[in-house]
Amino acid sequence: MQNFSFRNPTEILFGRGMIAAIASRVPTAVPVLLLYGGGSIQRNGVYAQVKAALAAHPAVVEFGGIEPNPLHETCMKAVALAREKRVGFVLAVGGGSVLDAAKYIAAAVCYEGGDAWEILTSGGAVVKRALPLGTVLTLSATGSESNGNSVISRQATQEKLFFGSPLSFPVFSVLDPETTYSLPQKQVRNGVVDAFVHVMEQYMTYPAAAPLQDRLAEGVVQTLLEVGPLTLAAPRDYDARASFMWAATLALNTLIGSGVPQDWTSHMIGHELTAFYGLDHAESLAVVLPGVWTHQIQRKEAKLVQLGQRLWGASTATATIARTEAFFRALGMPTRLAEYDIKAAEAAAKVQKRFSDRGMLLGEHGDLTPAQAAEILMLRA
Amino acid sequence: MQNFSFRNPTEILFGRGMIAAIASRVPTAVPVLLLYGGGSIQRNGVYAQVKAALAAHPAVVEFGGIEPNPLHETCMKAVALAREKRVGFVLAVGGGSVLDAAKYIAAAVCYEGGDAWEILTSGGAVVKRALPLGTVLTLSATGSESNGNSVISRQATQEKLFFGSPLSFPVFSVLDPETTYSLPQKQVRNGVVDAFVHVMEQYMTYPAAAPLQDRLAEGVVQTLLEVGPLTLAAPRDYDARASFMWAATLALNTLIGSGVPQDWTSHMIGHELTAFYGLDHAESLAVVLPGVWTHQIQRKEAKLVQLGQRLWGASTATATIARTEAFFRALGMPTRLAEYDIKAAEAAAKVQKRFSDRGMLLGEHGDLTPAQAAEILMLRA
Repeated sequence: MQNFSFRNPTEILFGRGMIAAIASRVPTAVPVLLLYGGGSIQRNGVYAQVKAALAAHPAVVEFGGIEPNPLHETCMKAVALAREKRVGFVLAVGGGSVLDAAKYIAAAVCYEGGDAWEILTSGGAVVKRALPLGTVLTLSATGSESNGNSVISRQATQEKLFFGSPLSFPVFSVLDPETTYSLPQKQVRNGVVDAFVHVMEQYMTYPAAAPLQDRLAEGVVQTLLEVGPLTLAAPRDYDARASFMWAATLALNTLIGSGVPQDWTSHMIGHELTAFYGLDHAESLAVVLPGVWTHQIQRKEAKLVQLGQRLWGASTATATIARTEAFFRALGMPTRLAEYDIKAAEAAAKVQKRFSDRGMLLGEHGDLTPAQAAEILMLRA
Repeated sequence: MQNFSFRNPTEILFGRGMIAAIASRVPTAVPVLLLYGGGSIQRNGVYAQVKAALAAHPAVVEFGGIEPNPLHETCMKAVALAREKRVGFVLAVGGGSVLDAAKYIAAAVCYEGGDAWEILTSGGAVVKRALPLGTVLTLSATGSESNGNSVISRQATQEKLFFGSPLSFPVFSVLDPETTYSLPQKQVRNGVVDAFVHVMEQYMTYPAAAPLQDRLAEGVVQTLLEVGPLTLAAPRDYDARASFMWAATLALNTLIGSGVPQDWTSHMIGHELTAFYGLDHAESLAVVLPGVWTHQIQRKEAKLVQLGQRLWGASTATATIARTEAFFRALGMPTRLAEYDIKAAEAAAKVQKRFSDRGMLLGEHGDLTPAQAAEILMLRA
């Protein structure tokens, strides 16, 4: 097992009716920025529950309109508002995009350097202070509700970058499965795939004498295999949605990745597909992941076989890859570039150039080259 | 799934050489109370590592001699010393007993009521403030390194009581598997059983539509089944000891019990066996647990069968009970009262009287009577 430090201070408030609990947790001594997305929370009653919980708060400043793959440009408008109103706490209500935007805004408000985009280009290293933030999660997928990570896009440059900071963990996150009942099926499908791939980025590497981490990761994906299709089939099945919600959180709250090597190649390549072609994040992952595993099948063989045996009773690495792709497709998720009318050769060339320009090497060994990233995409035509 | 709130702010510093990391984490602005047990840390080099890490600290006050099943009477001496020296931080170096004592001392120093024992009799409800504390764990078993729980005994009254508080979570805990290399085999055996039973107290109840919690709990006990015998056979196998150490922490860091019913009958009865007869904590659990399961076999049947199927391919509740007792015995752990020369009828009568006096009802349904607790002990002659 590798050495590690693990700390996750986020308070999870899980279950029906838990939005009311924010009343005692959002500080009333400072103005609070209430951040949300495109308005679905107004239609499904979540906005009303949040406003009721904040009824006694003397200063709530609202900022709506955070988009999927949240934009730097939009966040900067929220930063300007937060500074003007002297906001001291950010409350994000929505899915991973709103939560990621909240983390960026909370850090950018306090950033005393030049361009706040440096928070992204430094990977979070320049974050020395951030406003505290809480969240009300309405879409399970990214795990952002219980980690310090954020992914932000910049329209002007077609970039999509990541930052992480211990200062960006939410103070609290409300996870009420009922808030997710009204989600479009596509977003639930995306969430199941996203959570699945998050687990795999921390698992599908090489044996690292960490049998407990393996079991925990397998437990999360096994749960996703079981409740993913169920929650799609019956959106108002509370228990299925609750288990999916908790699984998506534990998929990326830094626990299962503690002490083990991690990959993240699928995410790095996937982010570029989103930046260049506008694929949903999970859509990009479903295309790329089987390619990464196929390309790296020899180096990942032991773990591919272990997963296959434990989840499906399968006995070969190729069977595990096939089962995984079949799982995505059974959820209604495309897994090939052609299904999005994307030419593999073009995508491969674009990604290779960008990774070359940035000098990026990927994977759990840190040696996967831009040319190999292109080869992976060529496998996904 | 049941509603829950989950928060575990403890920073885990895991691995070889991590004791050095406390240098930057123990506050230097206040005197620190360095708490330990019977002196094993002086023999195995841990004391020297801790002192080296604290070399620059201007005020380290030492208190040694915390005993197994730590005594209120001893802790009160440490409280007097801590008050006299105006201690502002407690650093516990040792196993669960030292850590539990540290939590009690940290709360008692700040307690403004009358007798600090009220912290125990209230279950922790009277704890409004506590000194911050950090730990260096040298014996895996209790999970105390990453929860807010403590068990303290009172010599004068032969009582052994529990308290828990969110204020009693360690700020940090160092888990270096190498610090456990020199442990007596008996303590390692005890630790494996203790961790196993901790998981089962949160698992072996009734199905609660929480498949992920089930998988996580099964993952922890599966790991204990695999690495428990291995780490006993090869005490200096770093990876085995590391996995055991991490499993024991996750067995009782409140994660796997979030959202599910919990039992704790074995602990409640076991505490009395320790108080009356001096059994080690784990020894008491190994005696009692199979009795609880046998007595409650109908109400626990679904989960007994599930565990048996997933861990051993066993298909009946009785097989799961037999397999579990066999696992304890294979570790060298007795499982019957007669092996300690304890008369079952006498133990049953004592425990029944004490639970009756306290008006205690036990179990995940809250309806197991003192008479039934006695019946359980009669099954363990």
